[in-house]
Amino acid sequence: MKKIVECIPNFSEGRDIGKISHIVEAAKTVEGVSLIDFHSDADHNRSVLTLIGPPKAVSEAAYRLIEKAAELIDIKKHEGVHPFIGAVDVIPFVPLKGMDMKETVELARSLGDRIAHDLKIPVYLYGEAALHPERKNLADVRRGGFGKLAEEIKSKERHPDYGEAKLHERAGAVAVGARDFLIAFNVNLETKDLTIAHDIAKSIREKHGGLPGVKAIGVPLQSKGIVQVSINITEHRKTGLYDVMSFIKDRADELEVKVRSSEIVGLIPKDAIFPKIREYLNLEDFSERKILNSYL
Amino acid sequence: MKKIVECIPNFSEGRDIGKISHIVEAAKTVEGVSLIDFHSDADHNRSVLTLIGPPKAVSEAAYRLIEKAAELIDIKKHEGVHPFIGAVDVIPFVPLKGMDMKETVELARSLGDRIAHDLKIPVYLYGEAALHPERKNLADVRRGGFGKLAEEIKSKERHPDYGEAKLHERAGAVAVGARDFLIAFNVNLETKDLTIAHDIAKSIREKHGGLPGVKAIGVPLQSKGIVQVSINITEHRKTGLYDVMSFIKDRADELEVKVRSSEIVGLIPKDAIFPKIREYLNLEDFSERKILNSYL
Repeated sequence: MKKIVECIPNFSEGRDIGKISHIVEAAKTVEGVSLIDFHSDADHNRSVLTLIGPPKAVSEAAYRLIEKAAELIDIKKHEGVHPFIGAVDVIPFVPLKGMDMKETVELARSLGDRIAHDLKIPVYLYGEAALHPERKNLADVRRGGFGKLAEEIKSKERHPDYGEAKLHERAGAVAVGARDFLIAFNVNLETKDLTIAHDIAKSIREKHGGLPGVKAIGVPLQSKGIVQVSINITEHRKTGLYDVMSFIKDRADELEVKVRSSEIVGLIPKDAIFPKIREYLNLEDFSERKILNSYL
Repeated sequence: MKKIVECIPNFSEGRDIGKISHIVEAAKTVEGVSLIDFHSDADHNRSVLTLIGPPKAVSEAAYRLIEKAAELIDIKKHEGVHPFIGAVDVIPFVPLKGMDMKETVELARSLGDRIAHDLKIPVYLYGEAALHPERKNLADVRRGGFGKLAEEIKSKERHPDYGEAKLHERAGAVAVGARDFLIAFNVNLETKDLTIAHDIAKSIREKHGGLPGVKAIGVPLQSKGIVQVSINITEHRKTGLYDVMSFIKDRADELEVKVRSSEIVGLIPKDAIFPKIREYLNLEDFSERKILNSYL
């Protein structure tokens, strides 16, 4: 079976269209790699690509992207509401077809090694690719962001997995990892009050007793004059998009705030949507095979 | 652009697995034709295939299917809750890609002509392929079912469009047509009371002030000891599956009856589902392109 891996590089530029397109174009120069989604946000000041294809080709595309980003982005000047540690902040790999997590871990580590060696950017391995248990969780790797990492990189605790304990002049550092599928889902609220986004983010988080497999933060979207709950769902079979939206709508009602809109960053697996359709329609059976457009 | 047509033959056998599989196999012998859905029901005593492929190949598959059905089914002995006039009751064609309705009408008429000439089965043209305005509506072509048609076929009003005014000994008659996409959606109710299915069917019908583009009948499902509202949605952009289910659930609540389950016969276009997902999730944008599985 042909191996297919997904890679979702997040880079720290969401405003300058010229830079963004040059960086994206660099990833597109590798044959066999498909760019299947692209999401850019001015407030997050961040862009997210979804690449799929054969492992080697996708890894090469990620390498070319980080090479170009290191050239065009100066992370010391970066401002954005999303946490970050580098010009290319995070490069996750997800096994999609014909390959297991072990192989995906090897792919991530091998790219990390190459980035540290050739580009002199310090690399932190996270998720399943982590070499240290305390780096499994990306939020821990990124804790305190770029500023904190600049202070602490020489400490033993924060020594990079690959490369020297010295941030790259322009690109900072990068987290490279392997993980299972994850849904990034942002919900925009009709208010400027950031405490409301924080409140809802806290209540929906698994670790504060919210929904299974949900991480969330509240961030301001200054360009729109509103706030956002930015969510990751790591267990989409337990918690689907409807569950998240229902939860947020209920909590927003209590706080007398309206939901303005939502957005999916990257892609979702069908299991995040279809079981709820089946449930609501009481369907005996439902899958994408029942949707005519799947065949055209 | 490669032309693709859909054909959804309905034949009057939903119980005898041996006969059903022989009839389905006959349609599958044509190269280039894909059988993308199959639905069989014992109470309706009817099976529905969804075939797609190039126009000539799909027409040939439909021909082979009716030839085999005429051999294996004796319509005089047929019993089932669904209205019918023949062994193969209805053969609708739907233009999917690279072809317009005019071409689809020609395809339907040409198959009809061949069926009447070679198989001696009288053919009624309906939908966009109708030669008479009073035969546009399939329900009018089928009014009174096989029994009534047997009495009236010699009348001027019911003279077949192709073939002689004489039912085929085993196969009866067949309606061949061209139409736009249609959704067949059945909702099963937790009651044996047929008047409740009739009541709900009536209230949801467009012509009785229900939902746009909805036709419905109430039928008993003796094998399950329940009743069913059997629905056709002809305007899925106006009335989606959620609208139908919400309507029925509300009416069922009023009548103190529960919805047991539902089923989609054949396929649905994404527009019957996705706009509601977008609406409920307040998504700025949503399509099958956001579903990862579409790429695998």
